[in-house]
Amino acid sequence: MSTPLELPASVSPFLSTYLPPASPSSSPDPLEPEETEPASRPFVTLTYATSLDSHLSIAPGVQTALSGPESKALTHHLRTFHDAILIGASTAVADDPGLNSRLPGTTLSQQPRPIILDPTFRWQLTRESRVLRTTRDGQGLAPWVFVAKEPEAGDVRVGVLEEVGGQLVVLEQEDGKEWGWEKILAKLAELGIKSVMVEGGARVANGLLKRGDLVDSVVVTVAPVYLGKGGVNVSPEGVVRFRDVAWCTLGRDVVMAGRVELVEGV
Amino acid sequence: MSTPLELPASVSPFLSTYLPPASPSSSPDPLEPEETEPASRPFVTLTYATSLDSHLSIAPGVQTALSGPESKALTHHLRTFHDAILIGASTAVADDPGLNSRLPGTTLSQQPRPIILDPTFRWQLTRESRVLRTTRDGQGLAPWVFVAKEPEAGDVRVGVLEEVGGQLVVLEQEDGKEWGWEKILAKLAELGIKSVMVEGGARVANGLLKRGDLVDSVVVTVAPVYLGKGGVNVSPEGVVRFRDVAWCTLGRDVVMAGRVELVEGV
Ligand SMILES: NC(=O)c1ccc[n+]([C@@H]2O[C@H](COP(=O)([O-])OP(=O)(O)OC[C@H]3O[C@@H](n4cnc5c(N)ncnc54)[C@H](OP(=O)(O)O)[C@@H]3O)[C@@H](O)[C@H]2O)c1
Ligand SMILES: NC(=O)c1ccc[n+]([C@@H]2O[C@H](COP(=O)([O-])OP(=O)(O)OC[C@H]3O[C@@H](n4cnc5c(N)ncnc54)[C@H](OP(=O)(O)O)[C@@H]3O)[C@@H](O)[C@H]2O)c1
Repeated sequence: MSTPLELPASVSPFLSTYLPPASPSSSPDPLEPEETEPASRPFVTLTYATSLDSHLSIAPGVQTALSGPESKALTHHLRTFHDAILIGASTAVADDPGLNSRLPGTTLSQQPRPIILDPTFRWQLTRESRVLRTTRDGQGLAPWVFVAKEPEAGDVRVGVLEEVGGQLVVLEQEDGKEWGWEKILAKLAELGIKSVMVEGGARVANGLLKRGDLVDSVVVTVAPVYLGKGGVNVSPEGVVRFRDVAWCTLGRDVVMAGRVELVEGV
Repeated sequence: MSTPLELPASVSPFLSTYLPPASPSSSPDPLEPEETEPASRPFVTLTYATSLDSHLSIAPGVQTALSGPESKALTHHLRTFHDAILIGASTAVADDPGLNSRLPGTTLSQQPRPIILDPTFRWQLTRESRVLRTTRDGQGLAPWVFVAKEPEAGDVRVGVLEEVGGQLVVLEQEDGKEWGWEKILAKLAELGIKSVMVEGGARVANGLLKRGDLVDSVVVTVAPVYLGKGGVNVSPEGVVRFRDVAWCTLGRDVVMAGRVELVEGV
């Protein structure tokens, strides 16, 4: 067992203005009827940890420890404010991630819904995949896997997923092209997700940075190391400028929080 | 005229342990004779400003404003502690840099010696090059240009350089290969340089990071912007780890100071 995560006192004030709006109370005030118009997309927080040379890992498919315990605690804290966490298929395959908050005291109702973008359903999930063990242990929610078409009949992974309450969500791809972010986010809104924390990998991050207009907050941890040429690199296609920038030093790392101001040249 | 640089109060305490040792007083104490063994290389500070995606500029040969006024003041302050500033030929060509400290109150004796690594002497310097104007204005020292062989007879640039007290320094290249950093630094030591601030560009930075054993301090400014694919990228060949890491927020930027701990996989 690793040491339990502990949240540094500076994190809550630092993050306060970058969080999704608080969810409406579950027993709505009858005198103030809830807004009927549902949002067309959830609140989107884009977040990940990079090296100084903006790599998420040392090579494709290799999980690389970057965040120290303090900035990792920030990430797990941030997860409790979101309805969902979203990752790309290559991250699911490479990292076998838990996709829950492991901050002590997190209740199941604070856990985010894991979403995996996996158009060809190539993630070889089994009952031993970490996210499924986490679900069975009552430490997290069952994942939803976004796929482009129905799986083959008899694919045992569907049963494995449904056993813990997870599901496949079929989202069609037009002309076999990857999903646009508007489409992904509209589907999440339709599924009742009001806030999503997009955690990578690089293909996901670069794609979403290009659509900075769809992003509400960006939270990037920078670890003091160069991973060197050949790493999995976050660098979008155009220039992305930020506003409302704040930095917080956490252990050996620094964390930037900001909002996308402008995307140029895409 | 741009606004004069102003040094934020946090800079001096932040940088204090990363500076070169103070130069011995110019009137040495006759009772404590100076050490006779000269150092084999100067104290080396590697420093530059990058985007979040570790680019020094948006494209080769294009100067890109990254540092805000506060972190720029840090850089100019740092220059006054060094005997020399060193850059690569492409930076001289692209940026037409001043290579002096423009912090108000800097005396000529605090100005560093500009060194340009230009093996084929391709920098088309003229009397109007900024570093030469700076020298004539008494705001900086005349540059030394490291070349691999004597220039053609009658090259007017030699006169232009010597007119202000600058010079060419011939450093032979073995088998036409680029200079090793040991060789460059030994030459600087031989020329009386006890401390050098290496300011880029990327080819210089990546080359020197690979030889982290020759670097004493690293000071990297990170500006909150992605410059995007195609930028001039700092990412060395191996993994470079740092120790004694400290971060300082300056305006919209953050600055990391540290020492190289380990270079792996080169
Ligand atoms: N440091 C960190 O914070 C962090 C966070 C996350 C991941 N990582 C690392 O990042 C690496 C993985 O990153 P990566 O860039 O290789 O992959 P990735 O972004 O995790 O996954 C990319 C894949 O997800 C699917 N996908 C993503 N966007 C899509 C879209 N708009 N429409 C349809 N499908 C989409 C595609 O699957 P198909 O190829 O099947 O079409 C795509 O190839 C791993 O090494 C992991 O350890 C690090
Ligand atoms: N943001 C910042 O802090 C910052 C700082 C500096 C520069 N920059 C930017 O960086 C860009 C330039 O970077 P760059 O990577 O293209 O070039 P660079 O590093 O400035 O210059 C590279 C050139 O210098 C010579 N050189 C370097 N190391 C050498 C060695 N060990 N032995 C022999 N010659 C050596 C070579 O000249 P030859 O090709 O003639 O052999 C080499 O091609 C510009 O766009 C500039 O604006 C930004």
